[in-house]
Amino acid sequence: MSTRNTRSETEETAIQLFRKMATRTILFHQAAAQSLGLFPTDLKSADILNEAGPMTAGELGKKTGLSTGSVTALIDRLEKAGYVMRKKDPEDKRRVIIVPLTAGKANVKQLFSSLSQSTVSLCRQYKEEELHLIFDFLKKVTDIMEDELEKLK
Amino acid sequence: MSTRNTRSETEETAIQLFRKMATRTILFHQAAAQSLGLFPTDLKSADILNEAGPMTAGELGKKTGLSTGSVTALIDRLEKAGYVMRKKDPEDKRRVIIVPLTAGKANVKQLFSSLSQSTVSLCRQYKEEELHLIFDFLKKVTDIMEDELEKLK
Repeated sequence: MSTRNTRSETEETAIQLFRKMATRTILFHQAAAQSLGLFPTDLKSADILNEAGPMTAGELGKKTGLSTGSVTALIDRLEKAGYVMRKKDPEDKRRVIIVPLTAGKANVKQLFSSLSQSTVSLCRQYKEEELHLIFDFLKKVTDIMEDELEKLK
Repeated sequence: MSTRNTRSETEETAIQLFRKMATRTILFHQAAAQSLGLFPTDLKSADILNEAGPMTAGELGKKTGLSTGSVTALIDRLEKAGYVMRKKDPEDKRRVIIVPLTAGKANVKQLFSSLSQSTVSLCRQYKEEELHLIFDFLKKVTDIMEDELEKLK
């Protein structure tokens, strides 16, 4: 009984913790995007392009869950701000692909460098096997979010 | 030398992992907010109100890093959607405070229930002491983000 209680307390703590972390993530990215003249979704869509490489507007829409109209406006903003460019697909000239640009990456990297530094300093306080456990948990949480995002679409 | 290399690889992994997680967090909240007719920042501001309790528009602006105009528009949207109400501060009638509403909480809770369930299921696969280590790390990451948000403002 006491173990069960402790367990459900742990689970309540987990939910509260993830909510708090999500809130700070969103507020941080909101402020970072604002300082670059972009919306938070713009910045994260640029991140998806950096992760996965060039893709069509339709593919980016699928990955982000944004409507066609929203994606077009988003690409316009990112292109204007120098983060991406529209280019004819070399493999199929009828298709237009969105290509992430290095200049934008550097700009964003600078903005996140203090956050990255602090995170790295935190990691240095942990043993290799502890980090392995933590990172494995976080990978699984990321996969869960990816699945849940699919359900929401 | 080899240990240093492994270490910096671990750090690179950490940064990549946090980026991926942040991207999914933002996209999930974007989709969730969209389905409620709100912006992601709206939902997270409602969360801050739920965490900290009623506060003035000025205080909410400080906590979210949003401008006065943005906060006013945000409170308008949240009030219209039934997540908050504006009320005279019982301790100082000249002040207006923003009060989070339970109905809004239930609505948001439902939307996040599948995500919460999956997260809880994941936690059940871990030992108590492992979760303690992971949660302590995540608390520290959340504190870092809070500090870094202050720097960006």
